[in-house]
Amino acid sequence: MAEFVNVAVDGMGGDNAPFEIVKGVVEAVTESSHVKVFLTGQEDKINSELAKYTYNKEQVEVVPASEVIDMAEPPVMAIRKKKDSSLVKALNLVKEGTCDAYVSAGSTGATLVGGQVIVGRIKGVERPPLAPLIPTAEGCALLVDCGANVDARPSHLVQFAKMGSVYMESVMGVKSPKVAIVNIGAEEEKGNALVKETFPLLKNCPDIHFIGSIEARDIPAGKADVIVCEAFVGNVILKMYEGVRGIMIKKVKEGMMTSLRSKMGALLVKPALKQTLKAFDLEQYGGAPMLGLKGLVVKTHGSSKSVEIKNSILQCITFTEQNINQKIKEKITMEEN
Amino acid sequence: MAEFVNVAVDGMGGDNAPFEIVKGVVEAVTESSHVKVFLTGQEDKINSELAKYTYNKEQVEVVPASEVIDMAEPPVMAIRKKKDSSLVKALNLVKEGTCDAYVSAGSTGATLVGGQVIVGRIKGVERPPLAPLIPTAEGCALLVDCGANVDARPSHLVQFAKMGSVYMESVMGVKSPKVAIVNIGAEEEKGNALVKETFPLLKNCPDIHFIGSIEARDIPAGKADVIVCEAFVGNVILKMYEGVRGIMIKKVKEGMMTSLRSKMGALLVKPALKQTLKAFDLEQYGGAPMLGLKGLVVKTHGSSKSVEIKNSILQCITFTEQNINQKIKEKITMEEN
Repeated sequence: MAEFVNVAVDGMGGDNAPFEIVKGVVEAVTESSHVKVFLTGQEDKINSELAKYTYNKEQVEVVPASEVIDMAEPPVMAIRKKKDSSLVKALNLVKEGTCDAYVSAGSTGATLVGGQVIVGRIKGVERPPLAPLIPTAEGCALLVDCGANVDARPSHLVQFAKMGSVYMESVMGVKSPKVAIVNIGAEEEKGNALVKETFPLLKNCPDIHFIGSIEARDIPAGKADVIVCEAFVGNVILKMYEGVRGIMIKKVKEGMMTSLRSKMGALLVKPALKQTLKAFDLEQYGGAPMLGLKGLVVKTHGSSKSVEIKNSILQCITFTEQNINQKIKEKITMEEN
Repeated sequence: MAEFVNVAVDGMGGDNAPFEIVKGVVEAVTESSHVKVFLTGQEDKINSELAKYTYNKEQVEVVPASEVIDMAEPPVMAIRKKKDSSLVKALNLVKEGTCDAYVSAGSTGATLVGGQVIVGRIKGVERPPLAPLIPTAEGCALLVDCGANVDARPSHLVQFAKMGSVYMESVMGVKSPKVAIVNIGAEEEKGNALVKETFPLLKNCPDIHFIGSIEARDIPAGKADVIVCEAFVGNVILKMYEGVRGIMIKKVKEGMMTSLRSKMGALLVKPALKQTLKAFDLEQYGGAPMLGLKGLVVKTHGSSKSVEIKNSILQCITFTEQNINQKIKEKITMEEN
């Protein structure tokens, strides 16, 4: 038991729960013998899904939870009232130390609120950001923050840069990750009030590799490893990624269907194209970790299929084994001295 | 002469000046007999470029300007000191009434500052936004503001919505254009402080067709005709468009080159694909108009080729013939009553 990384999974969260969630859990424990999943949710539903598969029973434990938090529910109220929900129960497993990490495809708001209220912040961390990996031409980059803290302050952004650096270095193995702040021009004097105030703070930060401003255009090209911004801008970046990618793929498909000649060509290029475009899929990395909490909280897409659930669970192993939270604690405390 | 729409073109602005600028001017006057261009710049250079082409001499007049404003120069200082620059001279032609419109591929900062200081705002307009057309799955949408006013206030955004509506209705022929505010969720209570304050103002605005919040993901899909946001967010949207589009096209090309089979397919799909992707090119619409000034000021990409210069000039004809500035004046004044 002691060798396992223990992950609490919200069995009822997301558009495809419990079917895809349970499937992803089974796939994760099949792929790694290092992980044990505590699956919260309505026992009968979870068990009847689990019954479809063969897997190592020691690696999955069902934790009964009678309630379900709806996507549209006001988060604070939901966390407070639905104590027996799959989401709250899963967070409590992390709080009480039974689990190292939490994964949910359920309500983003409830996960963000619950992460702070139930799991709690690491001492010194002001605002925990949501930090997804996004694909770039060079591999991937961490976008901090993509949705947790709108109207953040400069000191928050500095902590985002530090926590993001720890993540990219320890989880993704990027040596001295390049940190950049999202701006509307490359020059230091450009930007809005927040960026102008944050820029010199990042520049004077000794323990990160700050490379200056990055224009949104250069994010997909992979010019930085840690992309720092407040949550409103980060959310726009993430969703423009999805939106433009989606429409481009649609256009390419349409383009291939315009003539007999192109249709024949389409048959030939399809397999290779599918492979390349897959490497540029936002969902391949699993969910977004919320950095700076006492345990690991991972939020995956509401529309997650089993593969994303599986990847989110497997991500927790590296995160826990690499002792990320201890490293974040050290980096943040260093700042205070 | 009275039938011409008179356009001042900065002959020395942009990465490809004067070559592509002059070429674009010649293409514009060749395509339309309704336009006359006043081309500012160093006489010898402009004339030796013009000498390469055959065109109606009545439609192009060279206006000598000895200085050039550099892309990197601080805008306010440049406008103040370089009175004999091609950019300032072109703006002055609009100010004094010789020209109806101005087109430049030069310094964005100098055009924004010069537009306000030299051409001047329409009475009642608080902050003139830069408003490019962006391609969508449904055609195109107007993004206001993409770079003129960072940290804008709610009242500015309301004016952006009104001016954008006039533009889409009168220039693009969209009846009752759908206006949306960029947000990080569809619900009214979501957003940052600026959006929360602006949302009810737009909702209560009688003379626009406000459809609520739009997530960045839905912008390329074409769910709104006028996309309202402050300039920092707008700039990120525009540049993510360019960045993701560029990287997707690169990935598609790479994907097609991975095997012999896909290479053969690529030959067959290429012509059709090129055609479809062209319809999704950000540069097809010419430059971005700065709305709410006493004359029309159009800023095109610094890297503009002749086709973009031509389209920017031709755009000025509709803008002027449709009397957009009078319509903006009426809409803004209506607000004040």
